[in-house]
Order: sequence, then C-alpha cells, then structure tokens
Amino acid sequence: MLRRFAADKAKHLLRPLCSSLLPASAAAADLVSSSSPFCTSSSAPAAMSSTKTPPVSVENINPKIIKCEYAVRGEIVILAQRLQQELQSNPGSRPFDEILYCNIGNPQSLGQLPITFFREVLALCDHPALLDKDQTHGLFSSDAIDRAWKILDVMPGRATGAYSHSQGIKGLRDLIAAGIAARDGFPANADDIFLTDGASPAVHMMMQLLLRSEKDGILCPIPQYPLYSASIALHGGTLVPYYLNEATGWGLELSEVKKQLEDARSKGVTVRALVVINPGNPTGQVLAEDNQREIVDFCKEEGLVILADEVYQENIYVDNKKFHSFKKIARSMGYGEEDIALVSFQSVSKGYYGECGKRGGYMELTGFTAEVREQIYKIASVNLCSNISGQILASLVMNPPQEGDESFESYVDEKDGILLSLARRAKTLEEAFNSLEGVTCNRAEGAMYLFPRLHLPHKAIEAAKAAKTAPDALYARRLLDATGIVVVPGSGFGQVPGTWHIRCTILPQEDKIPAIVSRLKEFHEAFMAEFRD
Amino acid sequence: MLRRFAADKAKHLLRPLCSSLLPASAAAADLVSSSSPFCTSSSAPAAMSSTKTPPVSVENINPKIIKCEYAVRGEIVILAQRLQQELQSNPGSRPFDEILYCNIGNPQSLGQLPITFFREVLALCDHPALLDKDQTHGLFSSDAIDRAWKILDVMPGRATGAYSHSQGIKGLRDLIAAGIAARDGFPANADDIFLTDGASPAVHMMMQLLLRSEKDGILCPIPQYPLYSASIALHGGTLVPYYLNEATGWGLELSEVKKQLEDARSKGVTVRALVVINPGNPTGQVLAEDNQREIVDFCKEEGLVILADEVYQENIYVDNKKFHSFKKIARSMGYGEEDIALVSFQSVSKGYYGECGKRGGYMELTGFTAEVREQIYKIASVNLCSNISGQILASLVMNPPQEGDESFESYVDEKDGILLSLARRAKTLEEAFNSLEGVTCNRAEGAMYLFPRLHLPHKAIEAAKAAKTAPDALYARRLLDATGIVVVPGSGFGQVPGTWHIRCTILPQEDKIPAIVSRLKEFHEAFMAEFRD
Repeated sequence: MLRRFAADKAKHLLRPLCSSLLPASAAAADLVSSSSPFCTSSSAPAAMSSTKTPPVSVENINPKIIKCEYAVRGEIVILAQRLQQELQSNPGSRPFDEILYCNIGNPQSLGQLPITFFREVLALCDHPALLDKDQTHGLFSSDAIDRAWKILDVMPGRATGAYSHSQGIKGLRDLIAAGIAARDGFPANADDIFLTDGASPAVHMMMQLLLRSEKDGILCPIPQYPLYSASIALHGGTLVPYYLNEATGWGLELSEVKKQLEDARSKGVTVRALVVINPGNPTGQVLAEDNQREIVDFCKEEGLVILADEVYQENIYVDNKKFHSFKKIARSMGYGEEDIALVSFQSVSKGYYGECGKRGGYMELTGFTAEVREQIYKIASVNLCSNISGQILASLVMNPPQEGDESFESYVDEKDGILLSLARRAKTLEEAFNSLEGVTCNRAEGAMYLFPRLHLPHKAIEAAKAAKTAPDALYARRLLDATGIVVVPGSGFGQVPGTWHIRCTILPQEDKIPAIVSRLKEFHEAFMAEFRD
Repeated sequence: MLRRFAADKAKHLLRPLCSSLLPASAAAADLVSSSSPFCTSSSAPAAMSSTKTPPVSVENINPKIIKCEYAVRGEIVILAQRLQQELQSNPGSRPFDEILYCNIGNPQSLGQLPITFFREVLALCDHPALLDKDQTHGLFSSDAIDRAWKILDVMPGRATGAYSHSQGIKGLRDLIAAGIAARDGFPANADDIFLTDGASPAVHMMMQLLLRSEKDGILCPIPQYPLYSASIALHGGTLVPYYLNEATGWGLELSEVKKQLEDARSKGVTVRALVVINPGNPTGQVLAEDNQREIVDFCKEEGLVILADEVYQENIYVDNKKFHSFKKIARSMGYGEEDIALVSFQSVSKGYYGECGKRGGYMELTGFTAEVREQIYKIASVNLCSNISGQILASLVMNPPQEGDESFESYVDEKDGILLSLARRAKTLEEAFNSLEGVTCNRAEGAMYLFPRLHLPHKAIEAAKAAKTAPDALYARRLLDATGIVVVPGSGFGQVPGTWHIRCTILPQEDKIPAIVSRLKEFHEAFMAEFRD
C-alpha cells in the first residue's frame, strides 16, 4: 500500500509538464490534514538481485523523499529553465525576451548589487596575502582592511581554510552575540549560536532533533514557506497547520492555534514546536508586539519550542511596524532560560544584503538543557562546520560599519537605497495586483513577497480540473507562457481549501517594474476574458 | 525500552570526561552487529505540558541522534579544547605548550598554506569590482584574472551572490565534468554532478535516499570513516560491516564482503549499497586495479550501488600505486549507465589543496534512472544550493593551472611541495610507530592517516575496564594529557573486537615531526612501563 502510493505519486511527478502541476496541490492537501497519511513502517521489499530491474527505483527509495515537495524550486521553475534555454537558442520565439524569476527570494539574481564593504572583507579573508601589500590600500577601504585583520586574528592560526569549531569560529560567534545583544537590549551568548550554511540546514537540524515519528507534530502557519513542510516530511513528522487570517492582513490568531493544537492532540499527535515566520513568508505581515507576547505565553504554557524564522528581520517597509525578536519579547516579559525553549533562525540571504549564494546563517538556541545541547552539537559535528565565508558574512551583517568608519556613509547609502527601493516596489506591485479584476492583495509590511488571492472564474477552475492541475498552478503556468514571469502557485505554500493564490517576489529591479505591471495586467485581462463565466 | 536505552546512552555521554570514553566503544559494538538493536517504532510518549519537565529532553528527542556517534569530533576533542583554554589562561601548566590536533584531516589548521592561484581566483570572484581596476594587475596573476572572468561569465547575470541551480552553476559543472573526463579518459556529464557543501552532505543525501528503515543496510569497511556510521544511524538504517584485512595492508577481500552480505541477507536486511573508501580512511591503503574490477563485478551482480569515497584521489605517496576512479574502472570493463549505479564523492578539503573551511565538493552520479534522479534533485533543491565559493573551488581543483599559464610553475611548486612533504611525514611517522614496543603500523600508501595497532599489556586493558573506557581510548587520553597530541581511538572507526588502534593524521608541519616523534616515544615507553605485565 505504501509502495503503491509512493509509485503513484512518482508517476504524477513524471508526467509531461503540461499536465503535471498536480503534485503541488496534492502536497497542499497533505499539508492541511493534520494526521499524516504516511507511515514509517518497515515493510521493506525483498532484496533485488534481478539484473533487469534497476537496484534503485522510485518504488524502493525512502518514501519520505517521494512525499516531500518544495514548490519554490518545483516544476514551474524547471519549465522556466527550459523556456530560458529555448529563448537562448531561438531568440524571438516567445512574446518576451527574458525569464523573470519572481519565484524565489534571490535578489542578486535579479540585479541587486552586494554591499561593497562585505565583499571587500570577504576578498581580503580569502586571500590574506593581499593584506601585506601596499597596493591593497588603494583598492580597499581602511575599515575593510581593519575588519579583515580582526577576523583573521580570531581564527586559530589565522587559518582561513581550516574546518572551524562545529558551531563556527568562536570569535565570530562572539561578534554575532554582540550584534544580537545590541539589537535586542538583552545579553546573547556565543555558546548559544550555531553557524550554518544558510538557515535551511538549521531548520533541518531542529526537525531532526524533535521528530521521532509521524506521531510528533510541528505547528506551522498556513500559508508557510515550504522548507517547513519539506523538512517535516523528510524527517517523518506531521505538519499541524494553523491558518493565518487573510481578512486581517494574515493575522496570527491564537484561538486558531489553540484549536489546531487541541485537534492534533486529540488525534494522538505530540506537538513539539510552533513555527512562526516573522516577517511572514509568503505573507509579508509583521507581528505586533502584543501578538508576540501572547504567542510566547501560549508556548510556555503548552511546553512548545518556538522556532522563530527571523530571516527577514531587516526587511520592514511600513512605519508603524518594527521587528522584535522572540527572544527580546520573552526576556522583556521576564522569561529566562528556564521558562521557554526558543530558536531564532537568521540568514545572510535576505535583508538588504541578499547574499544567497554565500550560504551563511545561524540559529540562536536558548532554553535547552545541557544534555540536549550536546546532542545538537553532535549533529553539527557530523557535518564538521559551515563554510567560513558564510560565517564571516554572518558576523558582518550582525556588525556592519559604524559611524566614523571610512565605509559608513557608502554602506548606509547602499543599504538605504536597497531597502527604500524594495518598499517602493512592494507598494507598486501590491497596487498593481489590487487593480486586477478578482484579485485582492494584502500589503507586504515586510519580507520579500506578495501573496495575492485570485478569485478565479468557475470556467478557469473547470479548465484546471480538466488539465488535472490546481487552478492557481494553471494561472502561474499561463502567466509564465505569456510573459516570462515566474511565480509560485499558492498551493505550494498551503492555503484555505477553495482559495487560490500566487506568491510573487518584489525583487525585480525598479526599472523593470512598469513593464512587469503592464505585462501582468495584459495577461490577466486576457485570462479573465477567456474564462469569464 | 527504547527510551530507557536512549536515556542510559545519554547518561554515559554526560559523565565527567575522565570516565566517559565508553560511548565510542559502545558505538563500535553497535557497528559490528549487523542487526541493529535499534528500531524506529513510534512509541511516542504523551505530550508534555508540565512546567517542571523541560519540553525537550534526551528522553524525548529523536533516538537516532542519541545513537549517532562521531569520534573524530568526539569527547577527546572536547577535552583537547578545554586543555587549550587552560594553556591559554595558565601557560606552563602542562608539560607541553600547544595542542597538536592529529585527530582530523584539517591541514591548514596545522600550518599548511593554501594554493595561491585558488585563493586569487576566489578573492576576485568575491569582489568582482577589483577586475575593473588597474592596480589589480599588480596584485594578481594574469591567469587568475582570466579565470575569474571565465567563471563570472558562466554565472547567470554574473551574480556571485545569487542562489545557483540546485545542482550548482551549470558552467562550473561543465568545467568539473571536463576535469573528470581528462582524469579518467572517459566522458563525464555536467548533469550527473551535484555540487555540495563538502562531501558530507552528499553522503547524507545518498543515505537519505537509500535507507527506508533499519531493514535496509549499507556495506561499510571496518575500520571506516565515522561519517558513514553516523549518517546510517541518523537515517535509521543498518551498517553491514566488512572487515579490511590488517595483515595484508588493510586489504579489501571480496570473500569477506560476500560473507557479510549473505549474513545480512539471512537476517532479513536488504543491502542497498557498498561503501568503498579509496584511498582508505583511516587505513591509508590504495586499491589495486584488479581488486577494483572484482568489486565492480560483484556490485553489478548483487545489485548494489557503489558509493565510492574518492576524496583522497590526489593523496598517493607510493610509486607502485595509482588512483583509479571506480567510474573509470567500470567504463574500462565496458559497463555503462545501464549496468551499474555508481556515486563518486569528491571534496576540496583533502588532496594537496586541503581547503576544509570552504566546504566545497561534489558527487558524480551515474547509472540511476531519470525518475530517481528527479528525486535526488528535489532533495538538493530543499537546501537551495551549495555555497558558491565552494562551487568555484571545486571547479578549480578539477581544472588547475596548465603549462603556459603564468601561475603554472608556482602552482606546481606549491602542490609538489605539499605532496612530497606529506609522503615524507607519512614515512617518518609510520617508522616511529613501528619502532614502539607492541605497536605495528601499516604503510600509508595514500590519504592522510596512520592507523597503528596497539598490542596493549593486560594491565592496561584492566585499567581501562576499571575506568569504564576502551583501552585505546585510555591510551589516547593519556597521550593527550602527557603530550598535547590529539589522536582518535580506533574504537571510533570500528576494529576487529579485541584489537586496539589509534588514528593519527600525518598533517603536522615537517619541522614539528621530530618533536612529535620524541614525545610519542617518551610517552609510549612510560605508558608501557606503567602497565607492563
């Protein structure tokens, strides 16, 4: 039965792309059922020694992998890559001349430039011999040179090519802890920090720690960033969904979380943690302080770990909201190590820096026992350490140039330029979506995405059904075909059944936004005209 | 019962270090039993909501984590780190003035310098603005500048800070495929290459793919690099050991592999793959071509994937042995994609480059169906991509400077200097171990380690028993205390029961080797004098 299911699922995956956007919606259907249809029983088939059957096939691989879905790099992206090749080999074959990847928060792929100071320091640490040469002073800012020396000095033996401590270089963790303390106004400890290759491995590590079987559950917002559903599937646990309220700007309502927790418990699921993404991905809301306080109290009472995805902490676009880390909130309520277990994820891939390719990030763990901490250290050790450039960059984003440093002004200009532009793009695109017939779109208060709702005509829904795909997948697919714009169907993130969305980043460069808006409008009008009831 | 076991195991881990080296030997005992004592049943305890018990404890985390052991970063290293702090705060408190980390293949941590050309290219790619400046030509070699341009040109949009394709940047995979083809004399395909953050994540990916439950087994050499035992434990499978023959220079004997395969099958284990580490870690042997051919034939007949750990392919120190990749061997036997599934792991951390901190590496996958390949692509996608500096470095080590390039001579000097020195160090240390009473040591034909056998006096074994530790762990611990030299007890790698070994890298710089040898001899004589029967 299990193998049959896996094989059927795999067949869906392998259908020609034109009719195969189903898995995303199938995944969403899995998502919203809190009792997983999946079991990890050990009904292993007999050893295969026939030379005709390949020894490894989708029928006999780990079924958790078949179950796992990851929409932001899913089939629509594979299709986009094919279109891009087509455009290269046959320019003019499509009504557009480039593919615009609005599927993923990857700012530099769309032309955002890196922060100069950060790259200067990285280059100097990559080739420290430069530091001994006179010409270097003509090529690099003086504070980048100073910073590179400081970083080399905290590396044992100044060895920039050595494995570090499994949690990351102690001196860099000290810098990060200082940056966290300055941000929050509460102390942070280098021993609580685990540097990782981006935030994703940190999330996997926590899922691996907490999930023993499908009887263990993790409360996740719906819509959610699909790393969470993918990681829970890969580690054999159960995603317990709580729905964000679209009508109140994707509000996180505690009554809904409570209801879902009780429901999961009544089904025998041990709920271990609550994921909160703040600012929200794909939903862009920024939590209010009061809301965060009630979440902390709730998790404390219910014995839930808070897994706080805080990678968009620098991406806030509205004046009336501010980022507060969950640790700051908990400490300001008087709660310490003994009261609540908290994990904060941070990444160098987001913010104004957008250094996705560097794979730097960390998690700050508080409120875990020494015994559990040792086990986490052990898992970190099995992968030896995260990459040193990523570690250095994490220390830089948490300790950027300060007033008085040579780079300070240019740094502030670069940073503000990016953040103010992102705010403008968020607003323009939000207004564009809201101007479309049958589309409503909440404001992106933060993060890098809009998640507009599509009120699709009945005929479009029927057409999707006939094509064995989800209506929002049909829409995304048609949008790509007509305009080259890549967005992700809402079904890849989870959504209230019967509602349809797309996620679109706000990342294309500003000079491209007017063309995007007009292509989007033109496409949407044609789409609605074709399917209007 | 399961929870009790986990909790007991955890208690061992947490004992004061002086008596807690037991887990390594306990792990070894687990290793050599092909039917795992572990089960993944879902006897989850009830939800914990009491405020007194912490919600996360060693009793309720994933038991696979408790089971996992990783000796090369284990307790002896934690102890060494403490001693190092002690030396810093209280110099002169010990009979040595530095800790010599011979526990791990981490060359640059012991003073090996990076290859200049590689670092020049990395620095230019990290800060491409340098390429537009005149002074750069005075600071960098012309071929490093050319190479940086070539690399930037294969990056979509020249974006060095963007997430790449999930398998790595296509243009870099093309370069790596060309390097593999030049090495082997058989074609290689960029689509078969998955770039990863070092080799470890690639190994995890394959274990995650192949292991469904404890009924699935992986044949691993004993002694083995503990990444394999750790990864199999974390993914809930069973390690099926095959013993290397110490008497024949750690020979891989097919009769032993067959016997263990049959034994495992008779116990209901589905054996999915055979791990071969060539050159060997921790054992240093280099496989003969004939031996590799029979391994290929055997795996083909038995339907086993070959997981070939080929990260030491550049580290060969004897004239009568040469590295041959398993893919080259299989292709030279006339076997193609249809005949055998093969994975080759490579890393930028080893070889003469030793760039451990950069976390670059790849796996080359051949002989898998398109359907399975799509599933592997999906897992790679969940982590987005490996770090770009590591990707660039992997392309460089597979395509170093060529004759005629400005850097060629200095590159060859640096490379040969490192490899010839490693060969001398391997020989000197091997002779030193063989000169010790009761110690026999096979030659390190390749890789970075010696794995001498300790024939310990009965009294030493009794003393270890009384201290609840393994005899080789007692030896390693005493060695550290007396000399500051960190080695790993053989029990962390697995060994024939009743035999005892240590693993010692050949990586300390040459000027330190005489002092190491004399400290080692002095310690060993004192140890033997203390325990002689």
